[in-house]
Amino acid sequence: MQLPLGEFELIQRFFKTGSEAMLSSDDQSIMLGIGDDCALLKPNPGEEIAITSDMLVEGRHFFADANPEWLGRKALAVNLSDLAAMGARPLGFTLSIALPQVNSNWLEAFSKGLFALAQEYSCPLIGGDTTAGPLNICIAAFGSIPHGKAIKRSGAIAGDEIWVSGSVGDARLTLAALRHELSLSSTDLQAIEIHMHQPTPRIDLGMHLRGIATAALDISDGLLGDLKHILKQSKVDAQIFLDHLPKSATLQQQSEAVQNQFAACGGDDYEICFTASPDKRSVISDISKKLRLAITHIGNIKTMQFSEPIIQLLDKNGKELSATETANLLKSFDHFA
Amino acid sequence: MQLPLGEFELIQRFFKTGSEAMLSSDDQSIMLGIGDDCALLKPNPGEEIAITSDMLVEGRHFFADANPEWLGRKALAVNLSDLAAMGARPLGFTLSIALPQVNSNWLEAFSKGLFALAQEYSCPLIGGDTTAGPLNICIAAFGSIPHGKAIKRSGAIAGDEIWVSGSVGDARLTLAALRHELSLSSTDLQAIEIHMHQPTPRIDLGMHLRGIATAALDISDGLLGDLKHILKQSKVDAQIFLDHLPKSATLQQQSEAVQNQFAACGGDDYEICFTASPDKRSVISDISKKLRLAITHIGNIKTMQFSEPIIQLLDKNGKELSATETANLLKSFDHFA
Repeated sequence: MQLPLGEFELIQRFFKTGSEAMLSSDDQSIMLGIGDDCALLKPNPGEEIAITSDMLVEGRHFFADANPEWLGRKALAVNLSDLAAMGARPLGFTLSIALPQVNSNWLEAFSKGLFALAQEYSCPLIGGDTTAGPLNICIAAFGSIPHGKAIKRSGAIAGDEIWVSGSVGDARLTLAALRHELSLSSTDLQAIEIHMHQPTPRIDLGMHLRGIATAALDISDGLLGDLKHILKQSKVDAQIFLDHLPKSATLQQQSEAVQNQFAACGGDDYEICFTASPDKRSVISDISKKLRLAITHIGNIKTMQFSEPIIQLLDKNGKELSATETANLLKSFDHFA
Repeated sequence: MQLPLGEFELIQRFFKTGSEAMLSSDDQSIMLGIGDDCALLKPNPGEEIAITSDMLVEGRHFFADANPEWLGRKALAVNLSDLAAMGARPLGFTLSIALPQVNSNWLEAFSKGLFALAQEYSCPLIGGDTTAGPLNICIAAFGSIPHGKAIKRSGAIAGDEIWVSGSVGDARLTLAALRHELSLSSTDLQAIEIHMHQPTPRIDLGMHLRGIATAALDISDGLLGDLKHILKQSKVDAQIFLDHLPKSATLQQQSEAVQNQFAACGGDDYEICFTASPDKRSVISDISKKLRLAITHIGNIKTMQFSEPIIQLLDKNGKELSATETANLLKSFDHFA
């Protein structure tokens, strides 16, 4: 059903109401939300504001017939995941959205998924823009973090251990099944598809890793491809034990090649990859228990040997993969590839 | 010319370089720019962060063959205009952009226009996203403002005077000429088209209006349509003298109907409309002289008479327009109309 709503009425109906319900709660940081030229954010003394922005495009980041409730949730989740990777606490977000038409059913479902996740993380919608155009969802999210406590990509040093949260590869496995690149039983698909459609931003983990992790990022484009950003900015090499990569039971039923490819290079996982000194092992184990979240040691940071960082991949026998095998695995997801 | 650049190389080449050149200058508020999961902003003690986001879509906000240098400049300008309307000082911005292809000539021109304006207002690019997709430019801009000094839409009171900066209607007149709704000589078009293609964000004016204006906004959708937002949020009525609206010499050559329609309701002007107590007249006159910017008294705020605010329009003889004439003029630009 399509309604001839004007832009302001549209914003009011689906977004402002959900936003106001949250703002009326308790957050003292939001001085002014939707409805003025700008939103106003008042950080606590001694806190920095972490800012991230992701743009989701139909046919590129989601299918044209994507479940709008899942999509609303995911559009915010991928941004909160960036806040998590810095160790930030969510404060609020803006939503700018281009819509091909005003479809109230779609908007209702989309905003339901969006606000459900926003509620979970006390992260209200504070502004944005709405326009006609090919479907495009652009969210900017804001978080707070005590001064100097942000976990950057540049802090890894030789001797650090490399860790990853949750499991990796299920989002890619889901995509492969939906694209008929391989076949999965409907039971198997149901068991893993949540990782692609409704990823969990690891906000609690990120906040616990302040002062523990030396570097961190979230895995959106594939573990190894993203890890390279840490290596480049920290000017270090890495050694990864492929058989240590945490994989779901469903992924473990696939061939070893598929397991390695999807776990090491599958995009859309939104787990946190971080580095930490070996003396943090027990603290990390405690965090894992407290959050009931697997955190797995998958490799080590090494001194950089050449002008560009390298990732040494070890198979289950401890044998290093050849350059060709490595290059083949490293062909990571690129939005322009 | 199209180059097979990867996403990261693309960001690096056109955006990160321009960003780093600016960050290396002096701003202590930007703790971390492009290249991590988030940017980090450290507000000065006692300051709030103003946040705004605008999305520009091809065919809706600009023509497919728009000059990319102008477009880059305008995409940032419309966001800075929102900061100006709150009285905020620009701190930085994120750019999320969907591109149908990687065209290095287009990107070079776009980033040239973008960074030229960013330099003018010391507002560095601090993050964002790049993806393939129908051309869509989404900028979020951040400004700082002393606590409690933001100029909101809700502060106008009966007795206030209504002012507007610069002149209004030239962007609409340019659009009319480009759409062949009317004809303009090329000399006339050249004299006014800058208002549509390269609007000036009134940042200096906004900062000078802190503590002076009771309410303010920037005119993006048309003076009267935007003024209604102030009236609604302030719960007041307005009286506007149509012949007081500041118009360029070129617009004044048009019929009275066109003059009124374009000045009162033409979009894309990005001037500031604000309200202030009559005892601020001389201060406003001083600001106008200091900034070499016309600031014109165009009407007055009145006590609200009904449940919805009304705008009383007076013609050059002081006669009020009929309801039909008013409704006809008030048909403001709506992105979903």
